[in-house]
Amino acid sequence: MTETAATPEETAADLSVVTAAMLVIGDEILSGRIREKNAGHLAALMTAIGVDLKEVRIVSDDEEAIIEAVNALRARYTYVFTSGGIGPTHDDITADAVSKAFGLPCDHEPRAMQMLAAVYAERGLEFTDARKRMARMPEGAVHIDNPVSIAPGFMIGNVHVMAGVPAVFQAMLDTVVPTLRTGRKLMSRAVHCPHGEGTIGEPLAAVQDRFTDIAIGSYPKHDKGKFWTEIVLRGAEEARLDEATEAVRQMIAGLDG
Amino acid sequence: MTETAATPEETAADLSVVTAAMLVIGDEILSGRIREKNAGHLAALMTAIGVDLKEVRIVSDDEEAIIEAVNALRARYTYVFTSGGIGPTHDDITADAVSKAFGLPCDHEPRAMQMLAAVYAERGLEFTDARKRMARMPEGAVHIDNPVSIAPGFMIGNVHVMAGVPAVFQAMLDTVVPTLRTGRKLMSRAVHCPHGEGTIGEPLAAVQDRFTDIAIGSYPKHDKGKFWTEIVLRGAEEARLDEATEAVRQMIAGLDG
Repeated sequence: MTETAATPEETAADLSVVTAAMLVIGDEILSGRIREKNAGHLAALMTAIGVDLKEVRIVSDDEEAIIEAVNALRARYTYVFTSGGIGPTHDDITADAVSKAFGLPCDHEPRAMQMLAAVYAERGLEFTDARKRMARMPEGAVHIDNPVSIAPGFMIGNVHVMAGVPAVFQAMLDTVVPTLRTGRKLMSRAVHCPHGEGTIGEPLAAVQDRFTDIAIGSYPKHDKGKFWTEIVLRGAEEARLDEATEAVRQMIAGLDG
Repeated sequence: MTETAATPEETAADLSVVTAAMLVIGDEILSGRIREKNAGHLAALMTAIGVDLKEVRIVSDDEEAIIEAVNALRARYTYVFTSGGIGPTHDDITADAVSKAFGLPCDHEPRAMQMLAAVYAERGLEFTDARKRMARMPEGAVHIDNPVSIAPGFMIGNVHVMAGVPAVFQAMLDTVVPTLRTGRKLMSRAVHCPHGEGTIGEPLAAVQDRFTDIAIGSYPKHDKGKFWTEIVLRGAEEARLDEATEAVRQMIAGLDG
């Protein structure tokens, strides 16, 4: 007896799915010189607000690569978040590449120019052409405020363009999050399992078969020559999640016996 | 006077370019539960051996997403390295997805079956169907040895399928590296610059214009409220690299004065 039609609950859940992708832009990540630090932060935050992060791409400071990735991701997901390449130097080409991806002109945005001019005047520094680059954005873009260092990110369509420096990225993301449509929040439970995946593979698959509305993941751990597993269950309904968690615990107890 | 034709050196350099992409497979990374730890290691290693890592993608444990990414990346780059999804549990679907990407059947590979059977016999553990999953690979695949926990990865075409557990990923990668065609190694120089990118944007672009054979990147740093910059130069010819590095140092000295 297999159910093929979606129940009303499942239909409602599908309608409420909000997805996201991240695009990390920067040669320094791909060369291994700098460890990527923003994706993990974004991932945890998206999970917390019920947005399903589906994909992360890291590309180099290459216009074609950025354009292609932006267009692929914005067509597929509710939101796209980019990090990197919006500073004042010659290798900061994100604003131009994103503008081209949208087929929009990229110009110095008047309000950003004013904000930056004021900052540099206050600091007694010249507002050079290089610094003016940081005011460039596609026509019609909306600012993303930068409380750390003023130079704004921007939003165009469903794409949020943010800085790569982690302190600035996180500050920008904090200003963006309240504007997002968020999905149905999934709750999760983690169960420590002293056995390796080889031992639990079959019984865990049997539990998964019984709870098709709960996503069960198993994450192999390797510590001092010993394998163990963290089992994580995710679901939208607490009662069902507790029931499945209990089933996993019983499964482990059965193996211990 | 703009040169448009490639010099003999440039042509030779282009022929020797070896590229790579990485595909990270796993819900646990995209949910933010686990921080991705293999990409940085791969990136640094590829740079060291002269392979140009051009792209990293992270996708979920979703067959369609894996197939699409594998096919996009293997068509575009010399090598593809995957991590994750080759364990014994129901959410480990990398072997099947990669087989489908190549249009090949996925079966229990006899030598892998023997190796795993011997391991479990020695440990006095049953060689269950779940454990047998770890011997699955596409027809014609070549083993990638796993000195840590025996279950092999595999290579099919230009795609190297490896484990997600960092200790195992790194061990597998160490066995793969000597088999790779490596490119012309780029040397690099890093210059500490006490100024933010806004200050150096223009003069640095001028240096870049003079040294078109040297890739100059600038990486903004933010530390205790102060912005500074690390400038990294990369090139294949040491004399030119030294010349460009000296030009960057003089540029900074000019700003200090």
